Amino acid sequence: MVETPLPTPTPLLSGVTIIDLSRVLAGPFCTMTLANMGARVIKVEIPGTGDDSRAFGPFADGKSLYFSAINCNKESIALNLKKDEDRAIFEKLLEKADVLVENYRPGTMEKLGYGWDTLHARYPHLIYGAASGFGDSGPYSKRAAYDMVVQGMGGIISLTGYPGGRPVRVGISIGDITAGLYLAIGLNGALFQRAATGVGSKIDVAMLDCQVAIMEDAITAYDKTGEVPSPHGTRHPSIAPFQAYKASDGYVVIAAGNDHLFNLTSQALEEPGLVTDPRFATNELRHENVDALEDEMEKALSKNTVAYWLDALTAKGVPAGPINDIPHMIADPQVQARHMVVSVQDKVAGEIKVAGNPVKVVGLPDAKTFSPPPQLDEHRAAILAQFVGSTEGAAE
Amino acid sequence: MVETPLPTPTPLLSGVTIIDLSRVLAGPFCTMTLANMGARVIKVEIPGTGDDSRAFGPFADGKSLYFSAINCNKESIALNLKKDEDRAIFEKLLEKADVLVENYRPGTMEKLGYGWDTLHARYPHLIYGAASGFGDSGPYSKRAAYDMVVQGMGGIISLTGYPGGRPVRVGISIGDITAGLYLAIGLNGALFQRAATGVGSKIDVAMLDCQVAIMEDAITAYDKTGEVPSPHGTRHPSIAPFQAYKASDGYVVIAAGNDHLFNLTSQALEEPGLVTDPRFATNELRHENVDALEDEMEKALSKNTVAYWLDALTAKGVPAGPINDIPHMIADPQVQARHMVVSVQDKVAGEIKVAGNPVKVVGLPDAKTFSPPPQLDEHRAAILAQFVGSTEGAAE
Repeated sequence: MVETPLPTPTPLLSGVTIIDLSRVLAGPFCTMTLANMGARVIKVEIPGTGDDSRAFGPFADGKSLYFSAINCNKESIALNLKKDEDRAIFEKLLEKADVLVENYRPGTMEKLGYGWDTLHARYPHLIYGAASGFGDSGPYSKRAAYDMVVQGMGGIISLTGYPGGRPVRVGISIGDITAGLYLAIGLNGALFQRAATGVGSKIDVAMLDCQVAIMEDAITAYDKTGEVPSPHGTRHPSIAPFQAYKASDGYVVIAAGNDHLFNLTSQALEEPGLVTDPRFATNELRHENVDALEDEMEKALSKNTVAYWLDALTAKGVPAGPINDIPHMIADPQVQARHMVVSVQDKVAGEIKVAGNPVKVVGLPDAKTFSPPPQLDEHRAAILAQFVGSTEGAAE
Repeated sequence: MVETPLPTPTPLLSGVTIIDLSRVLAGPFCTMTLANMGARVIKVEIPGTGDDSRAFGPFADGKSLYFSAINCNKESIALNLKKDEDRAIFEKLLEKADVLVENYRPGTMEKLGYGWDTLHARYPHLIYGAASGFGDSGPYSKRAAYDMVVQGMGGIISLTGYPGGRPVRVGISIGDITAGLYLAIGLNGALFQRAATGVGSKIDVAMLDCQVAIMEDAITAYDKTGEVPSPHGTRHPSIAPFQAYKASDGYVVIAAGNDHLFNLTSQALEEPGLVTDPRFATNELRHENVDALEDEMEKALSKNTVAYWLDALTAKGVPAGPINDIPHMIADPQVQARHMVVSVQDKVAGEIKVAGNPVKVVGLPDAKTFSPPPQLDEHRAAILAQFVGSTEGAAE
């Protein structure tokens, strides 16, 4: 077989232009993901205030770090979609763009005269992505959504925390973020389809739907067994030891899924009595006596630090890891090696750090830096020159 | 403007064929997502046992409900990639397929003779998606990963739970699932790019990278402020009342982000004293006195049920919702209206329920049912007839 030279990889979404009306999180998280993959993202923001998250703390020299975390690699133009001259500019953008993204409540775009039926007829090539709390249809469609409300309704809180304890929210806005990811999947699928048909689609993603979609086996298992899935803290529902255990200065995750690994755990913890204890002779018994096992293991682990035990466990080949806080996660050598924390030079806040791009294309080097989060209306002149063919209105 | 008839929407990934070597969760979750969008997914499984998750409980008539939840809409063929005749069949599949997905530890495919360099040279059109714990590069690359280990390392556990309490795992395998979603984003992007170039890419997704990518503003905020982000139970870090509160029979999420909504909350809870209490006069004061506010609100809420208070709060326009367990989530009218729980007729387990497809294409009706999770090797004869042009080997 003769190997023929193949082209050098380029960013997957090179050449794609996205017009982004979205604010705060679900939509902006989607367009950040696509921008990091090479798409050009033009934020169309409300004059004066812009994306609501520009007002979210904490701040550095007046710049929102929340906004900055989600909006690198994007451009900004301020347009008032209720003013004729700005609508004309917006329509020029749509003519040449590939994708429009918004996360208004369903019905808002129709009121602006930019509902899907109108846009699809006028710009058949245009792909339209909408993220909302509850989607285009159903009895809650027009309700506003907050991440916390959707986490509560979607079931994830019922599986998280300790049995009988107060409810626990997943500590990030998983409702918004999951919707952003599914919208990105849909938009890339629509770009693929359009390459064959020439015609765009509208993707309608609801935060609540996405919570249902990530329930793993909970729906299927409950439906057949009648057992309502419940939270287990950090424990595995059927394997022990498989949870976070307290050492002298923090917690260690130990995932010893079989007798052999339990034997190695016993050696690493310098507690030969663990593996000979009849209460812990099999996984079934360890699971039955999981509280006693936790007590015995934490008695041993209390004698030294997380770092000490991680070395000992890893040396024996027991799957184990720390519970990293954010500074330790940032400093982790694997996170660093994968360029998952990127330094960005912001004109206002100076050097900031943001999460890198997890969609790695083999042969395509990771970006060493990103374009900074845009100032409101920063790219007006260049955008107008390109899309409208004049710099009229560039003075705003 | 004359409206021209536009084609009726079809599934975004119609015509795409995916060969799927992946097992358990990250890879199978990715290919489930793509199958639900119209791709043909052919699972290539180990003869005899198949996907490891076929052995995961709970079971219904011997069929794994865990496997069933993640593997609808897929076909199965059993192949031993260490046997020449099965390798020949596998290579016939790759010749005609669009995408190969696997979630082995990095290096495994190279040992089988199917590393990216080999495959890319031989099948330039083929797109390759890999999901692993730590990715193709970096010091942990060759380590096995478990969801719990990755959740601990990636920072999400440090943000979830109550301050000072024992760590809490996100109650689903968010490490695997997020990797599956990012891999789907990358594969659809690679399909889009290939439509222009004719050449495939390899997408390398690591579970740990994906955890870093979903940290919202935590990296950026910590880096600039030096404050280590910590867990808040269900509370919002700066808005009150914005959390889950205990009523007589469960918890109610109340998200009253401003003074007006707090006034309406006070009315809905039949506690006019709340809004006039000087401790709760502004959001800043409510946030400062958030424990006292919780006490007062739960005193009021203890007088009636979740259902009663949700009616009262919703009638006043206060954003609020329940903490649904899985049966209540399944029964929710919005979940039902969006077809997010789908009934599937399984040949072994009978009727099962699985999560629906959250990537809705406007104008394309939701599937009323899915193809059942395949029996091991169920589609051998048809696959061989199509890809190999004979039914040789169909007897296994």
